[in-house]
Amino acid sequence: MTGKLFIVGTGPGNPGQMTPEAQDAIAVATEFFGYAPYLDRLHLRADQRRIASDNREELDRASAALMRASAGVDVCVVSGGDPGIFAMAAAVCEAIDNGPEAWRQVDLTITPGVTAMLAVAARIGAPLGHDFCAMSLSDNLKPWEVITKRLRLAAEAGLVIALYNPISKARPWQLGKAFDILREVLPPRVPVIFGRAAGRPDEHIAVMPLGEADADRADMATCVIIGSPETRIVARSGKPDLVYTPRSFTGDRN
Amino acid sequence: MTGKLFIVGTGPGNPGQMTPEAQDAIAVATEFFGYAPYLDRLHLRADQRRIASDNREELDRASAALMRASAGVDVCVVSGGDPGIFAMAAAVCEAIDNGPEAWRQVDLTITPGVTAMLAVAARIGAPLGHDFCAMSLSDNLKPWEVITKRLRLAAEAGLVIALYNPISKARPWQLGKAFDILREVLPPRVPVIFGRAAGRPDEHIAVMPLGEADADRADMATCVIIGSPETRIVARSGKPDLVYTPRSFTGDRN
Repeated sequence: MTGKLFIVGTGPGNPGQMTPEAQDAIAVATEFFGYAPYLDRLHLRADQRRIASDNREELDRASAALMRASAGVDVCVVSGGDPGIFAMAAAVCEAIDNGPEAWRQVDLTITPGVTAMLAVAARIGAPLGHDFCAMSLSDNLKPWEVITKRLRLAAEAGLVIALYNPISKARPWQLGKAFDILREVLPPRVPVIFGRAAGRPDEHIAVMPLGEADADRADMATCVIIGSPETRIVARSGKPDLVYTPRSFTGDRN
Repeated sequence: MTGKLFIVGTGPGNPGQMTPEAQDAIAVATEFFGYAPYLDRLHLRADQRRIASDNREELDRASAALMRASAGVDVCVVSGGDPGIFAMAAAVCEAIDNGPEAWRQVDLTITPGVTAMLAVAARIGAPLGHDFCAMSLSDNLKPWEVITKRLRLAAEAGLVIALYNPISKARPWQLGKAFDILREVLPPRVPVIFGRAAGRPDEHIAVMPLGEADADRADMATCVIIGSPETRIVARSGKPDLVYTPRSFTGDRN
């Protein structure tokens, strides 16, 4: 008999933002596969075993978890945020797609979670309050030309753009280039939000106009949200500005 | 002194998918503003008062809540899913933007939640596993021409498309027309997911190719996810198909 395979999202890192459903799944499983910093968020019992791997090894991790579940072990694959957004659920599906027939019979449960862009948005107002897109800026798994085409079309469509994986040591120039491309399409006043570690003690959220947006503000843990021409800023004396995208379309592109 | 104003997301409706943070906010507030079916999800105490309003009255509801918070009451505005995604956070920001100065001083806390597309995606695999967009199909607050332009550009960009508010009694033809537009850009084999009440007892999830997608499958409570040319289906004998969008771009457009 196959074991259970849970894929859980821990949310952005604040325990108050992890769902009870994810907590229940964690209580059931006995082996935990994930990137070490995500596994560090769990409070495991003595009978629960952790198998940490590097951030880049998603497919190997997925295969290892499927092998164990297939052998009858109740296994949990741990993602930050939501496992379905640039995270482990796609890697596990891919491993099943290309793996042995037995893996298709594994009892699979995916528990959704609060993904980074939602946590960042909640801290600053409602920048994702109307049509938006979410894109990974990593060119490890797709050509840079595909990314630039998508950025351009998304901006032309008037979508707010949430960028995951904006920058890393191995990918230092892509975010700056992305801002350059967006500046060709969008007005310079459009707000850009740099949201780091939203909801956690080391949270840092900054807003600046696209015309002045500086890629150095971001690191691997930052979600960058670029407003649309509709996105507005509400100044509040003594409090941080609110940034929101109205529910109604005004057609204002000045 | 101003009261607190919480804007909470209850998640898709399954209590296991509401965050502890949202639960804590609900415990603090004494007046609850929301669409009646969302308020029905809460277990309120005798000292907590509910003020239900209709689905279409977001701005009036936001203003009423701000007025009470401004008067010193701890208030909670209740959304389904995540309050920042086609929901109450943008309406409250808009009311603050256009309201009296005192409303800017209200102590505002937004708690993020699991939005419908994440819950639907988790039930079927990982259709949002790579770049995607979320759009409201309602033409109540934006012109239909803006919607069609966005659909076309999103499909040309190769984004998976999650549609909120796909259909209603007052908007019966828009989803069918959206499928027609997408069929001009996307191959007919692209999977379309109709996800209704994901994670709830009355859940219904169906998948069909875009070439055969029938708008009658959707109602007001459905989130419709249209795959990209990259999106794949994994057949599993005795279990529902998995649908996922791989992390890598293959360029396959057949």
